[in-house]
Amino acid sequence: VPNIKLVLEYDGTAYHGWQRQTNAPSIQGTIEDKIRIITKKNVNLTGAGRTDAGVHAKAQTANFRTDARLTPAAWQKALNSLLPADIAVRNAQQVSEKFHARFSARSKVYEYSVLSRPDRSAVDRLFVWHVPFPLNMNAMKQAAAALIGRHDFTAFKGSKGDTKTDRCYLKRLTVRKLKEMIVITIEADRFLQHMVRNIVGTIIEVGRGKRKAQEMKQILKSLDRRLAGPTAPPQGLCLIEVRY
Amino acid sequence: VPNIKLVLEYDGTAYHGWQRQTNAPSIQGTIEDKIRIITKKNVNLTGAGRTDAGVHAKAQTANFRTDARLTPAAWQKALNSLLPADIAVRNAQQVSEKFHARFSARSKVYEYSVLSRPDRSAVDRLFVWHVPFPLNMNAMKQAAAALIGRHDFTAFKGSKGDTKTDRCYLKRLTVRKLKEMIVITIEADRFLQHMVRNIVGTIIEVGRGKRKAQEMKQILKSLDRRLAGPTAPPQGLCLIEVRY
Repeated sequence: VPNIKLVLEYDGTAYHGWQRQTNAPSIQGTIEDKIRIITKKNVNLTGAGRTDAGVHAKAQTANFRTDARLTPAAWQKALNSLLPADIAVRNAQQVSEKFHARFSARSKVYEYSVLSRPDRSAVDRLFVWHVPFPLNMNAMKQAAAALIGRHDFTAFKGSKGDTKTDRCYLKRLTVRKLKEMIVITIEADRFLQHMVRNIVGTIIEVGRGKRKAQEMKQILKSLDRRLAGPTAPPQGLCLIEVRY
Repeated sequence: VPNIKLVLEYDGTAYHGWQRQTNAPSIQGTIEDKIRIITKKNVNLTGAGRTDAGVHAKAQTANFRTDARLTPAAWQKALNSLLPADIAVRNAQQVSEKFHARFSARSKVYEYSVLSRPDRSAVDRLFVWHVPFPLNMNAMKQAAAALIGRHDFTAFKGSKGDTKTDRCYLKRLTVRKLKEMIVITIEADRFLQHMVRNIVGTIIEVGRGKRKAQEMKQILKSLDRRLAGPTAPPQGLCLIEVRY
């Protein structure tokens, strides 16, 4: 059965996250419904990352199996004409039988945007976390660097994160400033529930001077969620790349 | 009576433009209503530019007169707490009795964003015009340059534009590309109704090869709206600066 890989962009504002739910709109459910309109058959769309409610994607990937005889280009065109304006198919291609959007991924890259200025934003409000306090860039860069490598990230895991192992290989974690926007980029082979948002929440506390960059190693070693900072809000987060 | 100047940012998606209307939400009406909550008196908020429905602003300016004894900082804080999330006060200050947001302005600067790629966008959909055709940057730059200067812009004026004179001094009109985004920046001492959107619509036709850059001068001289291109959609437009 042909295996189709999609690259998806979406504005997550109106959805209760990626994962299909019974009583709330989801990205997965919305796309599955449109695929079903085309194939008249049930379908299971597997996403690389299960983004939370309000989280966005510029290049989420997903795959599904279908015996419908459409070319990948026809899939893209058909889905883009059926999908709502806040979900778009950036690319479609046929991939090997074995390809699995999540298990085949080598790493995923997220970007988290923090708007650093005293007053709130109107235009960017659904795509940034507004932090009205001064932030120390050097301290945040130091805090970020301390987390790079292969570690057990239990201390940065949400309470519902139900995983066999909490070890992740964090390949990249950078903090850069572009005018009023602070962009935190994070790449890892896998992510635990709320991991990016908990790391961002802790880095911002370091930036505000509420804790020291040196504490990051201790928090990591403690495996204790209570020692890390608060969970950053979802709207600043965007899945920007899945690497295979 | 103290004269207060506001610098405003807004996402125009949900509004029928700047100007107060009887039966539809407007930026002006929304802000006037909040000022009235504070002062308990009628107020008239004068904007520098009357943006159309769906048009955004990063730095619209406006002024109003009030005898309420609030400091400018208190005005900013009070309004930001009362206004909806899609309108923000970036700055408030007390200005001279004579200051008039529109008549005192020396020039206004607009940015128009065109997303140039085959497939549509989900995340940026409310802030760009998606043009799925290849665009010739050099031709567009040439077309833009032809309009700079002091001219009668009747050929680029909307049919409802009711003005005594259609002469404007177009100080700047640039077209630049940042990855998939083409940004057209335009500065003039005054703008006629739909002028930016009609200029952009015509430049894009040049970019697509539907007309030549050399035609711009002829269109301008014709004073005939029918010779110019279509009106670009509102959501790509943003008022970014008002100069005094």
